[in-house]
Amino acid sequence: MSADTPGAEDDLRARLAEKRAALAALEAEITALEKVLPPVSPLAPAAFPDLPGVAGLRLAVGAAEVRYRGRDDVMLALLDPGSTLAGVLTRSATRAAPVDWCAERLAALASAPPGGRAILVNAGNANAFTGEHGRAAVARLAAATAGATGLDAGSVLLASTGVIGEPLPDDRIAAALAELVDGLAPAATEHFARAARAIMTTDTFPKAAGTRLRLGETEIAIAGIAKGSGMIAPDMATMLAFVFTDAAVDAAVLQALLGPAADRSFNASTVVGDTSTSDTLILAATGAAGGPPIASLEDPRTGALAAALEGVMRDLALQVVRDGEGATKLAEIVVTGAASDISARRVGLAIANSPLVKTALAGQDPNWGRIVMAIGKAGEPADRDRIAIRFGDIRVADAGWVSPDYEEAAAAAYMTRDEIVIAVDLGIGTGEARVWTSDLTKRYVAINADYRS
Amino acid sequence: MSADTPGAEDDLRARLAEKRAALAALEAEITALEKVLPPVSPLAPAAFPDLPGVAGLRLAVGAAEVRYRGRDDVMLALLDPGSTLAGVLTRSATRAAPVDWCAERLAALASAPPGGRAILVNAGNANAFTGEHGRAAVARLAAATAGATGLDAGSVLLASTGVIGEPLPDDRIAAALAELVDGLAPAATEHFARAARAIMTTDTFPKAAGTRLRLGETEIAIAGIAKGSGMIAPDMATMLAFVFTDAAVDAAVLQALLGPAADRSFNASTVVGDTSTSDTLILAATGAAGGPPIASLEDPRTGALAAALEGVMRDLALQVVRDGEGATKLAEIVVTGAASDISARRVGLAIANSPLVKTALAGQDPNWGRIVMAIGKAGEPADRDRIAIRFGDIRVADAGWVSPDYEEAAAAAYMTRDEIVIAVDLGIGTGEARVWTSDLTKRYVAINADYRS
Repeated sequence: MSADTPGAEDDLRARLAEKRAALAALEAEITALEKVLPPVSPLAPAAFPDLPGVAGLRLAVGAAEVRYRGRDDVMLALLDPGSTLAGVLTRSATRAAPVDWCAERLAALASAPPGGRAILVNAGNANAFTGEHGRAAVARLAAATAGATGLDAGSVLLASTGVIGEPLPDDRIAAALAELVDGLAPAATEHFARAARAIMTTDTFPKAAGTRLRLGETEIAIAGIAKGSGMIAPDMATMLAFVFTDAAVDAAVLQALLGPAADRSFNASTVVGDTSTSDTLILAATGAAGGPPIASLEDPRTGALAAALEGVMRDLALQVVRDGEGATKLAEIVVTGAASDISARRVGLAIANSPLVKTALAGQDPNWGRIVMAIGKAGEPADRDRIAIRFGDIRVADAGWVSPDYEEAAAAAYMTRDEIVIAVDLGIGTGEARVWTSDLTKRYVAINADYRS
Repeated sequence: MSADTPGAEDDLRARLAEKRAALAALEAEITALEKVLPPVSPLAPAAFPDLPGVAGLRLAVGAAEVRYRGRDDVMLALLDPGSTLAGVLTRSATRAAPVDWCAERLAALASAPPGGRAILVNAGNANAFTGEHGRAAVARLAAATAGATGLDAGSVLLASTGVIGEPLPDDRIAAALAELVDGLAPAATEHFARAARAIMTTDTFPKAAGTRLRLGETEIAIAGIAKGSGMIAPDMATMLAFVFTDAAVDAAVLQALLGPAADRSFNASTVVGDTSTSDTLILAATGAAGGPPIASLEDPRTGALAAALEGVMRDLALQVVRDGEGATKLAEIVVTGAASDISARRVGLAIANSPLVKTALAGQDPNWGRIVMAIGKAGEPADRDRIAIRFGDIRVADAGWVSPDYEEAAAAAYMTRDEIVIAVDLGIGTGEARVWTSDLTKRYVAINADYRS
């Protein structure tokens, strides 16, 4: 082809315009078809996992028609007397009313004796940026849940996900409470599956993970569900996760275990680097498995419990990344040799959040120059001439320049995998971190640029 | 349409797969056509601007075949004796060899008397992440330029943009120097136009701006060129800008004027939030317009000069944003009522860099919830219940909730414009800032996900 002559150029221009119009029409057709047959992430697990029952936990789901029709959109978790709670909440300065409520209740319950607890969650409306109405709706819902379950309102946590800036129809949720309480059942796989579906917004698959382990003489279970951070019109990006165990753990210890596990799971994963107004992670321990409570971080059982909690939470967090909007790749960024662990994490997140790195992943392009760029912009200590980069086992760069044995063909072949490891050694210290991200695809833009209708 | 029966669902699935395959084929055809007829940003200015001549400045361009064939790819600017320089360079920890060189030379020249200066720029190879070779190449090029121009090597600045991690063919650039020096011509519009084209990488149009003004008794000129930050395979995102004036300004004053002007222009504009390893902004003052030099910030002429410089630099910076890869919108984010100007700027950049805000812009979606989200994640002081948001003149939110008179249809109509103003008042202080960004389109992903070939 050639555009040497003006006539040929006009012809080309016309053909391009024609092709672009055809493309737009085809995209519209695909969008319409996908409304009937919503696509599932290519990175979704083959099946919903088998989960252990968690003694002392009952679950119910219901349809309150908060926004969606013809599906469950509320979930109630009831925790037997003897339970404790811990939480990690969004740091957003514009966080939603139910997050404010959880922050206040978790602080108060941290020093209260264990007791019965409830968690009420709805999808479809985030009750965010709703001013005084939002606060009042939260107070009404907590009171209604307390009335329906026989608990104090102060023992009820709330979470909402969905559209923001619209008043929460809390009356419809409250009206569903009696049926929810009637439907409460001891949590087994099928109940977790329904609950995981009820809290979905733009997720393409329900997310759950669990495990069993022995703590001293007692066999305990951990099981959790999560919904992902998609930010699709008309819904607000929100990560919600609820993790339950029947171990007996004091609230203060539970909170102390949760923070580091969250930092190495949910807080080490990123889809777009945007932070929701509603992100909520709650960990509940019923104590119903029996055995003496873990009352101190010095208790020898905490190591195994912490590792198991982190494993379940990482599993959930990686499912959220796998369901990143339009994602076709899961990338693990491993940073070593940093000035500190915190510095390593910041460098990892700078790489994981870079649109240029994420589009290169989408294009299966071993574009290590963009990784150098992202390291440089992280604002952390680094020495250009000590940086080493690997894709999987492929040495890409050493001592600040491309490795002598680097072959782009091998790296390009590696990048066609679903799961990619990018390893960066900064060569200046002993700090290390791992973070996870997905790729940035045209589909991500298509999903998020669609007008809210 | 309905997917009620398994047979119908299979049929739908097959149709979707067929449409997706057709889409991929069409995209490939469009990509091939665009290689012949590269698209120009829809936000490009109608024509290259008329620029004033800058006395004491001569420009030349040449073809050194650094990477591209059949086009100019090197530019030489020669500044007559009596010239001073100032610069703002990327803060990247992995910055390129020529940036290190400029930092060192600018520091040394800041306290040297005015003199002859040269700036040599190439496109096609960024000489970044090239270790010892990069440093040696820079030293050789500075020496060669000095030899060809009769200056000291220490009076030569260098900038390179293009692919990273590959050795700069500095011998080919050095070989072009004699012809460059022969071709030097007093700078007028046509020379600026050629220079602006010679430094382009993925830019879709050449960028220039200029003005004349009277400083005391002297009429002076300001003219500058820039290339944009696109990060397209195989090139590295780089913003380069060179601004020239024939005013007489001491180096220290020139540097003091440049910093704030850069903060309110180039550093207030963002395409993807990624920082290049090579970003370089150089301001040169030849003094050839005559008149007494500006030797102090107390000089009454500095106000007018600073304002004019800022105007030219903002014009250039906005052209860079208009040429953001795949951009179809230019958005100005105005933040007021912040705790401080710095805080306002951080909030503005959090909005401007949010992929969710940028995809909403692409979709012409007045999705103000995403703006609330971005304010919240900025990590700056904010009170959710005092936030007000406007799109242009349309009041969207007041006191933390949607405005009573907000009509989404009006906002949606506003969002169809090429240029959008998003105004956020935080209601807690007097800090304010303006920043600029473009939208995030499928085309951005297409450009950046394409495999380097």
